[in-house]
Amino acid sequence: MPAAVALPREVAQVQALVAACRDARMPVVARGRGTNTTGASVPSGGGLVVSFERMDRLLRLAPEDRLAVVEPGLLNGRLQEAAAEHGFFWPPDPTSAPYCTIGGNIATNAGGPAAVKYGATRDNVLGLALVAGNGELIRCGGNTTKASTGYDFTRFVIGSEGTLGLVVEATLKLSPKPRARQALRALYDSVESAAAAVARLMAQPVVPSMLEFMDGDCVRLAREVGGADIPAAGALLMIEADGDPDTLPHAVAALRRAADGPGAIGIDDAPDEAARLKLWAARKALSPALRTIAPGKINEDVVVPVSRIPALVEAVRALSRRHGLTIVCFGHAGNGNLHTNILYDPADADESRRAEAAMHGVFDAVLSLDGTLSGEHGIGLAKRDFMGRAVDAPTLAMMRAVKAQFDPQGIMNPGKLLPPT
Amino acid sequence: MPAAVALPREVAQVQALVAACRDARMPVVARGRGTNTTGASVPSGGGLVVSFERMDRLLRLAPEDRLAVVEPGLLNGRLQEAAAEHGFFWPPDPTSAPYCTIGGNIATNAGGPAAVKYGATRDNVLGLALVAGNGELIRCGGNTTKASTGYDFTRFVIGSEGTLGLVVEATLKLSPKPRARQALRALYDSVESAAAAVARLMAQPVVPSMLEFMDGDCVRLAREVGGADIPAAGALLMIEADGDPDTLPHAVAALRRAADGPGAIGIDDAPDEAARLKLWAARKALSPALRTIAPGKINEDVVVPVSRIPALVEAVRALSRRHGLTIVCFGHAGNGNLHTNILYDPADADESRRAEAAMHGVFDAVLSLDGTLSGEHGIGLAKRDFMGRAVDAPTLAMMRAVKAQFDPQGIMNPGKLLPPT
Repeated sequence: MPAAVALPREVAQVQALVAACRDARMPVVARGRGTNTTGASVPSGGGLVVSFERMDRLLRLAPEDRLAVVEPGLLNGRLQEAAAEHGFFWPPDPTSAPYCTIGGNIATNAGGPAAVKYGATRDNVLGLALVAGNGELIRCGGNTTKASTGYDFTRFVIGSEGTLGLVVEATLKLSPKPRARQALRALYDSVESAAAAVARLMAQPVVPSMLEFMDGDCVRLAREVGGADIPAAGALLMIEADGDPDTLPHAVAALRRAADGPGAIGIDDAPDEAARLKLWAARKALSPALRTIAPGKINEDVVVPVSRIPALVEAVRALSRRHGLTIVCFGHAGNGNLHTNILYDPADADESRRAEAAMHGVFDAVLSLDGTLSGEHGIGLAKRDFMGRAVDAPTLAMMRAVKAQFDPQGIMNPGKLLPPT
Repeated sequence: MPAAVALPREVAQVQALVAACRDARMPVVARGRGTNTTGASVPSGGGLVVSFERMDRLLRLAPEDRLAVVEPGLLNGRLQEAAAEHGFFWPPDPTSAPYCTIGGNIATNAGGPAAVKYGATRDNVLGLALVAGNGELIRCGGNTTKASTGYDFTRFVIGSEGTLGLVVEATLKLSPKPRARQALRALYDSVESAAAAVARLMAQPVVPSMLEFMDGDCVRLAREVGGADIPAAGALLMIEADGDPDTLPHAVAALRRAADGPGAIGIDDAPDEAARLKLWAARKALSPALRTIAPGKINEDVVVPVSRIPALVEAVRALSRRHGLTIVCFGHAGNGNLHTNILYDPADADESRRAEAAMHGVFDAVLSLDGTLSGEHGIGLAKRDFMGRAVDAPTLAMMRAVKAQFDPQGIMNPGKLLPPT
């Protein structure tokens, strides 16, 4: 529990709050809608929670310049509705989009399936205003999609999880909303065949707008527990293209050619929206199926180079056997960003211990495969103790040194992102 | 002239050089092939020039993971040749690509026409190794196209013009090489009509792979001085699409529909490569034409939001009249990144003075139109005195504070990017 919660309505109030906390050496923890998965928004060291619930305005929408200026508490879904009226969207599309905030998306560098074509939050923000931990209002970036004017604080602040300051305004780059989309579902005999197909798909010029992966255990659970009407397979890819209705059939044909190859055991397409939703049934059946077999799960959003996906899935299988736990892998294959779900019963102390050990094993595997700890959730409390292995000592020291410039008193979300010294 | 030039062959030598200069408080200026346009690579304060001419290896090319690991002295054009063998390319495409280095591209956040679709250097680098001014080797980013693992030093270093440290290795994100491209040339009665067409083109889902602009004075010079066989027009757009041969005709049709509208006085397409090159004749005729009317030019790569392009061109026309100099605007319209060329005779003291005054006027206009000083050239010496107007005082102070963490002795490219205190 924090000492207090503040609900500011304007930038000047945020500046006053941070200045007061700076002088009182009190921790400041930003909060959007609390959908973070790493503990980054938990006030674990007490202090002041600054909720941005009342700073939720869309300040400006400029379709002719493809940008929107927003307050941090604006819900991602609300922005999408407003942008859609002008034929635009903002690409970051986490599952929580209807009820998470743009400020939270910025704090974590949120992504989602669309990142494979459109990038994550860091690729879709033009400028920011930040009340730094020292109390100063810093304005980074601007209104243009191209800039080479001094140091890029905008992208540096994105993903910093509230440890440098509080983002009070953001200028977002909008993209033209696709006028049509079409899906393919491809089944493979093995993870290796599917990973080779991912590499082929990402090596030709039609960039898929989604490229989602499910390993064989996911497919089995979706069939046997979730009741999805799909054939057995060693791995599954959901592939989508989007764009203009006239170009789309040709784009889908190019993706189908790339998806086909050794080990492909069936590629189904969805010429209309109803068929598209039916193809997604296997993926949709998965989450309830996971809840059926265990009440708890640890979901880590690790990333490896695409060619290492089979080695990661193999390492996860070995961890599953060693610790006697079901662990499944699915996620955003085009970026090598796999959600590794360790299923366990939190009420069972021994299972909890084994789940924790398996999670450490996943991080070990990812780092040995040239991967990284997080693709879109961030570090928070959950992974901070692994930062010293993911980042070498001089680089970590520089991260601390730069943080100290923004936040000399160390009040901004202390204990998150960086490991304890 | 620098005190000395070093030509290291490996990272350890670069670290030894920086450590020695740090201890001796000697300036260190990185040098690729010296194609920089802002004076950033000029050793204006003496000291040591570190040339990366001998660190020019392509260390690794991994098509399956869409990445290349390079030394900073590798020529952009050499990388393109190697990547093309595997069906890939690296998007930054400055005019100097055949003879500029990747290290220089990183220092300036170099772009080019392809940035409208593929982004500039900052959008196409996954990781870096940097010998910071404090002598430490910092490793930022990694091998994956998605990451949310601590502070993003990679994009922060890109565009820092050698003022934080020396980049000694870079991991680059490759893109699938388009299998076909096709061009349109659209003529408009006015800059306003052309800018409205740019906004329409950027508001529909087929992203052009080039969207280049020439104002009416450019068109006139290309016709009358350059001898290009094109009709008179108030403005011209060169529009290209790229991709898969099957999707391309439909993409071009979508772009043609968007380009057409009020004030469009002719849209020509180029179904084959010969026709495409012919359409580019006007643009190619321009540079020699500019050299014919004046021996010198100041070329500033300013950026404004797309809707402000007409206001910028109008402000430039007023400056041209006031200072009695020919000033023309052309460049990357999709990003609002216009190259403003002030033509003058450097041997004429009065013209030089007027050209300088006109340049200040261009910067004034750009900043008043919510734009920025540079899109792809950087700040260097040429624009550093304007940084205090482009960036507010607390943000500039934070830039200095962060630089001091990388470079406590202030030896890294002193006098560049940041204004003198």
